[in-house]
Amino acid sequence: MKVDTVSPLAPDRFPDLPEIAGLEAAIGRAGFYKHERPDLLLMRMPKGTRAAGVFTTNAVGSAPTDWCKQALAATRGNARGLLVNAGCANSFTGPAGDAACKRSMEAAGEKLGIPARELMAASTGVIGVVLDDAKIAAALPKLDLAPVRWPDAAAAIMTTDTFPKGAGATCEIDGVEVSIAGIAKGSGMIAPNMATMLAFVFTDAALSAPILKTLLRQETEASFNSITVDGDRSTNDCVLLFATGQANVPPIADAKDERLADFRAALSRVLADLAIQIVRDGEGATKLVAVNVEGAVSAASAKAIARTICESPLVKTAIAGEDANWGRIVMAIGRADQPIRKDMVSVRFGDLYAARDGMVSPEYDEAAMSAYMKRAELEITVNVGPGTGTARMYTCDLTKRYVEINGDYRS
Amino acid sequence: MKVDTVSPLAPDRFPDLPEIAGLEAAIGRAGFYKHERPDLLLMRMPKGTRAAGVFTTNAVGSAPTDWCKQALAATRGNARGLLVNAGCANSFTGPAGDAACKRSMEAAGEKLGIPARELMAASTGVIGVVLDDAKIAAALPKLDLAPVRWPDAAAAIMTTDTFPKGAGATCEIDGVEVSIAGIAKGSGMIAPNMATMLAFVFTDAALSAPILKTLLRQETEASFNSITVDGDRSTNDCVLLFATGQANVPPIADAKDERLADFRAALSRVLADLAIQIVRDGEGATKLVAVNVEGAVSAASAKAIARTICESPLVKTAIAGEDANWGRIVMAIGRADQPIRKDMVSVRFGDLYAARDGMVSPEYDEAAMSAYMKRAELEITVNVGPGTGTARMYTCDLTKRYVEINGDYRS
Repeated sequence: MKVDTVSPLAPDRFPDLPEIAGLEAAIGRAGFYKHERPDLLLMRMPKGTRAAGVFTTNAVGSAPTDWCKQALAATRGNARGLLVNAGCANSFTGPAGDAACKRSMEAAGEKLGIPARELMAASTGVIGVVLDDAKIAAALPKLDLAPVRWPDAAAAIMTTDTFPKGAGATCEIDGVEVSIAGIAKGSGMIAPNMATMLAFVFTDAALSAPILKTLLRQETEASFNSITVDGDRSTNDCVLLFATGQANVPPIADAKDERLADFRAALSRVLADLAIQIVRDGEGATKLVAVNVEGAVSAASAKAIARTICESPLVKTAIAGEDANWGRIVMAIGRADQPIRKDMVSVRFGDLYAARDGMVSPEYDEAAMSAYMKRAELEITVNVGPGTGTARMYTCDLTKRYVEINGDYRS
Repeated sequence: MKVDTVSPLAPDRFPDLPEIAGLEAAIGRAGFYKHERPDLLLMRMPKGTRAAGVFTTNAVGSAPTDWCKQALAATRGNARGLLVNAGCANSFTGPAGDAACKRSMEAAGEKLGIPARELMAASTGVIGVVLDDAKIAAALPKLDLAPVRWPDAAAAIMTTDTFPKGAGATCEIDGVEVSIAGIAKGSGMIAPNMATMLAFVFTDAALSAPILKTLLRQETEASFNSITVDGDRSTNDCVLLFATGQANVPPIADAKDERLADFRAALSRVLADLAIQIVRDGEGATKLVAVNVEGAVSAASAKAIARTICESPLVKTAIAGEDANWGRIVMAIGRADQPIRKDMVSVRFGDLYAARDGMVSPEYDEAAMSAYMKRAELEITVNVGPGTGTARMYTCDLTKRYVEINGDYRS
């Protein structure tokens, strides 16, 4: 499925990202696609780089996510390289897939002068097809490492994403300026396969692998774990955070150290920015929707309700139709199987109340509501009770184009 | 949203249902729709009728489901009447909605000569709008009770269902012939509202309310609780089972009594038939899909996996596109968050293996698979491990027409 048009929700341009000292990258073509396009990204990080990752919870998983988990465990977070391919997910490929992944890591490690187990692997594309690592081996000699050019790197990992995704920030750790830069892909689709969400984030801060792991896990919760396009979760999802240690940051022993506050906030912004860009590129999306849940018994309960709203086909099709169909939101709240006080349920679109205190709102204004629904970016806020649990999730609408992209390409 | 065409998956004709002695019914028009159509079904059952119900687990619920639960508890399952309206769900309407439901039950009870609390209420239609019971009160005098005509009764409870749904069976209890007849509606859609699934099943057997409740709860599991169109669960779902006791059946004290085996099997067939008809009328459906899961650690685990497959937008759009995209099924298995053995996963369409032992099947035949996918009725069977847990669920495909029905009617 080739997508020719850029999502209407795409940012105006690729952002300027700060330089991360010591990073090198090369893009190339292994030939996983029939048409001419880059499908390989190879990166090298300086000695002393530390890394952490969060990976799909899909029980089927994939050879590259298994590889990363094992390599990070074996090296205790020492990682100096990254090889990403688009066009083949190498998921559900059994021992043959694992072996192909390992061979491609060994070949890339040789190219970079790094042990294979210090390389991270990521793949996105067709499921159930063993990675043809010979294609990668043949492409590696042609790759020339150079300072990373972010738009090119982001484009090389796209499948049917309609725009490359990047985000960056600068911040301070104990008075020292450090930078963060990241790229991501998703949730474009490639026949006959599923969406995969990949993100690679780099900083020049010197941080230990356990600190990176803690920060990444915590900050993923409100970013990549708070977006949903269609509820389908890939076998290959992966977010990797690398710290090159080139910035002259004093040693920090604990992720709770207050000197990390600014860094943590900046990382959070970068991850959220990338995550929301993925939703902006949701298949067929014409609306970006933020759903806030308030008054739940806990944050987890609020998130479960937010997710049910975000993934309800009836809510998503109503939004596609620019219909303020708040009844469907009430239905979704009710089917989340969470404790609620139905006499306290309220639903508002932006500042406009549709429902309040378990009934239609007396101030409900159809005309104002219809005008609001025409926006490209919507904010839906629901209250479900007297609790203090809140959550915020992002989704997009469900359009005929989604069905077309995912169903029509063979018929 | 008016639907003009009948679902391509509809049965050829409404079935001949057996007579249930003592049942009377009337259909009429309260005017919940602007266009001319029946929107009321009133039924009277003979003295001694016992009833049981299963109701939506949606936490928001509705006035009529609350009414039924309270009335059945208060009367211990004595119920002699039923009033169903289409066009207004009377859900999320607070105390005003409860009061309106009560008044309509009182008016109908007066008409039937039955105490209000012996009447069951069911509503389907717009959510968040209080039932205008004055319309019902005005319509009641015009209703003439007569022996039930099933196709008319089934049509009166439709919203945008494209065909009326009925099923029946005869069976024996301890050598005495008894009959079962039922009607259902769903999952048609009416702007601006959600699908609601309603079913009313009648038998002339003499069975106690506790036995009815046990049988209904057990047999609902493999029928109404094993279908999903879009995963959205209505506030008003309700299945009611009435036993008029007109057949001369010997007293039975226990739902486990072996003399009920034939009845239980017949009830199971009727409920499954009605449930599958609802899927056949899923919005925009062009394919009826049965999903079997085998080898799970338990029946509940198997059902969770089956449901994830059945509700995956990527699986459903692939089926709409007649694409044997087994990779998406593998993805759905993996995201069900259930214990699986990925090296034992197999996927087959009909008898054709796509995947076996955790990899693409060596006997995978693209041409045969493509031919199979063109069928209107598909059977997908997955194995997920060495366990004995199995499940079977029904769903339909996700088409552009679904998005159109649920999103485009205002734009």
